[in-house]
Formats: sequence, structure tokens, C-alpha cells
Amino acid sequence: MDLEELMQQKAAAAKQAAYKMALVSTVVKNQALAAMADVLEKRSSLILQANAEDLTEAREKGMKRSYLDRLMLDENRISQMAEGLRQIAALPDPIGEGNYSTIRPNGLEIRRVQVPLGVIGIVYEARPNVTADAAGLCLKSGNAVLLRGGSEAIRSNQAIFSLLAEAAYHSGIPEGSLQFVETTDRKAVDIMLHLNRYLDVIIPRGGAGLIRRVVESSSVPVIETGSGICHTFVDETADFAMALKIAVNAKTSRPSVCNAMETLLVHEAIAPEFLPRLQAAMEEKKVELRGCAQARQICPSMKEATEEDWATEYGDLILSIKVVRDLEEAIDHINRYNTGHSETIVTENLANAHKFQRAVDAAAVYVNASTRFTDGFEFGFGAEIGISTQKLHARGPMGLQALTGMKYLIYGEGQIR
Amino acid sequence: MDLEELMQQKAAAAKQAAYKMALVSTVVKNQALAAMADVLEKRSSLILQANAEDLTEAREKGMKRSYLDRLMLDENRISQMAEGLRQIAALPDPIGEGNYSTIRPNGLEIRRVQVPLGVIGIVYEARPNVTADAAGLCLKSGNAVLLRGGSEAIRSNQAIFSLLAEAAYHSGIPEGSLQFVETTDRKAVDIMLHLNRYLDVIIPRGGAGLIRRVVESSSVPVIETGSGICHTFVDETADFAMALKIAVNAKTSRPSVCNAMETLLVHEAIAPEFLPRLQAAMEEKKVELRGCAQARQICPSMKEATEEDWATEYGDLILSIKVVRDLEEAIDHINRYNTGHSETIVTENLANAHKFQRAVDAAAVYVNASTRFTDGFEFGFGAEIGISTQKLHARGPMGLQALTGMKYLIYGEGQIR
Repeated sequence: MDLEELMQQKAAAAKQAAYKMALVSTVVKNQALAAMADVLEKRSSLILQANAEDLTEAREKGMKRSYLDRLMLDENRISQMAEGLRQIAALPDPIGEGNYSTIRPNGLEIRRVQVPLGVIGIVYEARPNVTADAAGLCLKSGNAVLLRGGSEAIRSNQAIFSLLAEAAYHSGIPEGSLQFVETTDRKAVDIMLHLNRYLDVIIPRGGAGLIRRVVESSSVPVIETGSGICHTFVDETADFAMALKIAVNAKTSRPSVCNAMETLLVHEAIAPEFLPRLQAAMEEKKVELRGCAQARQICPSMKEATEEDWATEYGDLILSIKVVRDLEEAIDHINRYNTGHSETIVTENLANAHKFQRAVDAAAVYVNASTRFTDGFEFGFGAEIGISTQKLHARGPMGLQALTGMKYLIYGEGQIR
Repeated sequence: MDLEELMQQKAAAAKQAAYKMALVSTVVKNQALAAMADVLEKRSSLILQANAEDLTEAREKGMKRSYLDRLMLDENRISQMAEGLRQIAALPDPIGEGNYSTIRPNGLEIRRVQVPLGVIGIVYEARPNVTADAAGLCLKSGNAVLLRGGSEAIRSNQAIFSLLAEAAYHSGIPEGSLQFVETTDRKAVDIMLHLNRYLDVIIPRGGAGLIRRVVESSSVPVIETGSGICHTFVDETADFAMALKIAVNAKTSRPSVCNAMETLLVHEAIAPEFLPRLQAAMEEKKVELRGCAQARQICPSMKEATEEDWATEYGDLILSIKVVRDLEEAIDHINRYNTGHSETIVTENLANAHKFQRAVDAAAVYVNASTRFTDGFEFGFGAEIGISTQKLHARGPMGLQALTGMKYLIYGEGQIR
């Protein structure tokens, strides 16, 4: 069987199972999630053995240490995966919830209810925990799933997947609802991106390269996730202590994640006083600063920021800094360079806070808080499948709700039009 | 300036205007819609003259009568367009509505509010009224719009658009919010489908060919609309009089539209009694019937239905008919061949009605009513931009709500993570 046929077969099996999945009760889904969590812990040695083989190969290929760290599993990380599944079981089931209901003048009763999307394709990179997270979230929301993980984690993913699928089917989940692509052939992804007949959506999880590739080539609808060029704007009236605390947190608490700050904008009226303090605080945290010309007049030891810096997600201890004339210039800069993720203003001015929130185009717009809060748990949704940076369907942290769609149910007594 | 540059420029101008559009008040938007409606009626001679030129060219090209009918405008149709804009003005403004609000344990206040999508691209075919409908709906929902109509209606569309844009800007709508592609070069569409930097969504409105082309090539997110292979399942316990009334209505009241029935499924227990009556009723309405082998045993004068028939949207007075063993076979057939639009069961059996509604995968699933009701006005949403047959973002008739997205507004007092 060639790859095209193989992928078609998996996707078609998922589609068939999806019709049954839509009818599975919450009780059965939760029992399955509990069994899936248990089996990961009980059979952890199997996963660790597969993971050791993946790690050996990755080391031989000379992968970076940060990469190896993402790939590596231990008992603790496996327990976290299991805990994640248990948390998903504890979340309310979104399926069946109604959000519109009316009786029309002709007597037709119309209800709109939440239903699963159908089959969700997940394309992801090195972290093997995504296998469990994604399978759990898709299952709880009544969807079938087709998983395609990174080739470097293939053995780990395969081991996790096999345990999960067996436990799920044993608990009454329809056979075929969980599908995993075992091949490491990159062409599998290209094929997946065009399985419109079977897949209802594809969600890429990984680096900017992967996401761009999926968005650009997929004819299946995509939910774009991940990349974050997040800004902090320190307004004229900002409380300096608060601004410094927020800026340091947004930049340094976890620089590699998408809700970390990449650029700080500061009002020109306070820049001469604020920037030297910021520089001191950031240098203490080993952050490299790159400033615009005006910033460098104030702090000459900063490197020079180029046009490219404004459009770069460093994911590292680097911060670009720009002095702006006013709120409007800050908003314009953000709307030009941001990726629609998270933005914050530090201000004591009510009108400016309000205007910033209305005019800045991003999933999450903060006043006087760190951008680092953009996260499913922090927002109160529980586990998330990613952070959407597009506007269609889902925006910001995507919990179970984002994995559902709608359906209209209409009751009549013979009405015709 | 080449076409690529021209399209970029238009889309960039729309994007710039979109930031301002998001802040325009409902009052200003409604005044603009009223002014747009008025100008269409007051300057109708200008539109009719442009339309006459389009019609002359279309006739010279030998276009079909049904095509010319869709292209043709008269005073009455122009008044309908104006009336449509006035109805949009009367609809509630969806922007700013909140649908989630919480205070987190750390004191962060999180609200989720409805916001415009940004810039909406509309690619459409012959009907010039789409120019006014789409411009009106996008404007009311706070979006900028880039319109690309069919080349055969270029003069009509251009005339309508110019009047609308002038009236809108005069009423305080930000300049640039309304963009129209004047060129008839087909390449303009291909360019549009990749303007990811500027366009937030593309909605195609037209025939299956156009929609397929957009879905397959666009890297901008697409909302798929339109095609409808709708079924009526006449269950064992159906009231025959009701079933006949619904079937005749669903097939013949307007056979060219997407919510018309294409295939009738009938339970084998009642087929021998029901099908002859159906045949008589349909033949009275000049409907050509194509039956499966079992149906033709009962009504030998029916043509034979092939595999292709089950997958065809006739859009015409043709009906395919299949006898099924039971509810499950009906559901399986529908889930295999439908396009996710509208399906109905005629039954007196509660359990079957319930199961049909849960198991059939479509935007609208009816019990004892004609599929012809799937429509924005009939559902109580007012004017619609199309009927979504995909599951992501919007499903079924898309009113103003479907042209909005979400944004999280977060207030803090210096919280860090």
C-alpha cells in the first residue's frame, strides 16, 4: 500500500468512527480518559524504553540540548501526562450544550447545539506529551483524531499512542477514533493537508516553520497557533515599579514561550527616566537590549535595533526597545508588527487603557498585567490544544470549546415554505 | 502598477481602515447604511445604464437565459437591494457583546467580547446584488471588505460600489473600508487568495466550481458556502400526506437553490405504498425521477439511478430515490453523500427522530419539515452572507454574528506570572 492510500485509509477510518464518537456519553469518555491516564503510569517502562531509543538517535544526529530536553521523558513527565488526562476528564463536556433556541412564527422550533467538529488532524513536533494531550482533548470533545508527530519522537509517540488507544477502546470508545501516522516520511503531512473529504480541521503545533508550511499548503481548514511577537507599552503615566516588574516577568520568566514579550515600547516623556532603570533590571537578568535611535541616545550601550528586530520573535533573552511619541504610535507599531497574540499597556490613565484595549488587534489585550497569562489554565479553561492567533473560529487559548462546532436541530409538524 | 501591486495596495488600504472601522459606533454605521440605501434608489439610472451594457455584452457572448436573468437589474431589484441595506441597519450590532467574564483567583479580570474579523474578502459571481448585500453586512459588523465580483457584471458592480462607497464615507465610515477590484483579470482572484497579511477570511459566493477553486487554493482562511445535496428520509411511521407535502415542497418550490432536496430515501416497509403516490405527485410537477433497483421494481417507469446520482446536486427538477432497510441505512447514506447542508426525516417515531438528529452530520437537521427553511431570514437572523457547509467558525446560515470574532480584554493591577 502506498503512502497516499495509507493516509486515506486512516483518515477514512477516523471519519467513520467520528460519527459514532459524536454519540458517546460523557461517562464513557471520562472512564476512557481515566483508563488512559492509568495505563501511561502502569506501563511507563515501555514508554521510557522507546524514548531512550529516540534520544539515542537524536544525540547521534547532534541535536541541540534544548531539543533533547523537549524530547526527553522520565517518570515525572509521564505522571504529568497522566495528570493532564485526568484534568481533561474533570472538565465539563461541551457537547450538547445549547446556545440558541427559538420558536419561529410558523411554529418551527429551532435549537442550536454544540457538536464535535468530526475528525481533527494534529501535526506536531518534538514534545511527546502532545500525543497524550491532543488525544485526550479530542476524545473529550467527541472528536476522532489523526495524529502526526515529529519523526524524532516517533518511537515515544508510538508507544504512548498504542497504550492510549488500547485503553480507550477497551473503555468503550469506538474503534478507529484514535489514529496515528507511524511513518516518518515527510510526504505524509502534505497528503494530510489535502484530505478534505475526511478531516474537518488541522491544528499545527510546533515552530514557525511548521505552522507556515501548514497554513500555506493546506486545503483543509487550519487553526493557526503559536507564534507570538508580544509587546509591552509603558505609557506616560505608568507606575515605574509596576512597569519594571511586568516587563521583567514578560521577558524573562520563560523567554522561549509564545506569550513572552519581544518588544517594549515606551512613551517619550518618560523614556529618559525609565529606560536606564529598565536597562539595569534587564541586564541583571542577562537580557540583551536592542534599541531604536532615541533609546540609544538615552542608553548608549544598547545595541542598535533594525527593522528586522521589530518583526522577530526571539524566543530568547533578547529585547527590542522603541521610544514612541504617544499612545497612537504605540498602537500603530503593535498593529503593524504583532502576530495577534498578547499585548499589554502599563498605565494609570483610564482613557488610554480603554483605547489601547479597543484599538489593538490581538487575541488578548492586557492593562497592567504581564502577557505571560495568555494560557488555557490561567484563563480558567483548563488544558489547551494551543493558542490561536487567527480570528476565525477560535482566538487565544483553545480549550475543549474550540474543538466543537454547531448544529441546528429543527422540529416541525409538516411545515413547508 | 502591476496586478499584484494593485491587489496588495487595495488590501493594505482595507487593513488600515479596518483598525478604524472597529471603533465606529453603531449610530454612524446605521446612518451610513441608510445613506447607502437612499443613494441606490436616487441614482438608479446610473446603475441601470451600466447594467444594460453588461447585459448587451453577455447576450453577445451567448450567455444562457437563466444567467442573463441573474445579471439583470430593474427598478424593483434595485429597491430590493436598498431594502436589504435598511434591514441590515435595523439588525442589532453584534460588536462589543460580551459572552464570557470572570475574575481569576489572582485578581485578573478577564472578559471576552465580540470584535470585527478585520478585512473580509468576498469572491462572487453574476448577481450584482451581492455587491450591496456583502458591503452592507461587512460594514454593519465593523469589517473592511475587499469585493471581487464576476467579470460579466463588472460595470453594474462598479456602479453600485461607487455609489455605496461615496455614501458610506460621506456618513463617517473610514475611507478605504470598502474596496472593489475593478479588473476582470482572473489572476486577481489567485492573488487575493494569498493576501494572508491583509485578509482575515475569504468567503466565496457562487457555483460549485468557484467554491472548489477558492477552497483548494486559498492560504487565507475560507468559509465554505453553498453546495447542498439535501435528503428527505421518509420513515416507516411517516404520515404519508405530510411526507408528500414536504417532499414536493423541498424538491419543487425552488429547485435551483442549495436547500432544495436532491435525494429521497424511503423505508422499505412503506416503499410499495408510498412510492407510487410520490411518483404521481412529482410527475405532476414535471420532476424526473431516478430510482434504485428496489424503487424501480415498485415504479418501473422510473429511470435508473447510478452511483453518480447520489453524489449530484441537480439544482433542477430531478430527484433520485433510494429504498433503505432502516433508519441506520438512511443515516449512513446521508453521512456518505451529503454536503453538510440540510437533511430531514419524516416520522412519527420519537426515538428515530432523536437518533436522526444526533447522528446525521449536517448544519441543519429537521424533523417533519422541509429542508427549504435553511436560510438566514427563516432562522431569524435577518440577512445572510451565505450558508456555511463547513464546521469551523460558522455553520448554516451566516448572519452578522458569523462576521465577528472574539478578543480577550484583561485588567490587572500589576499581576505577573
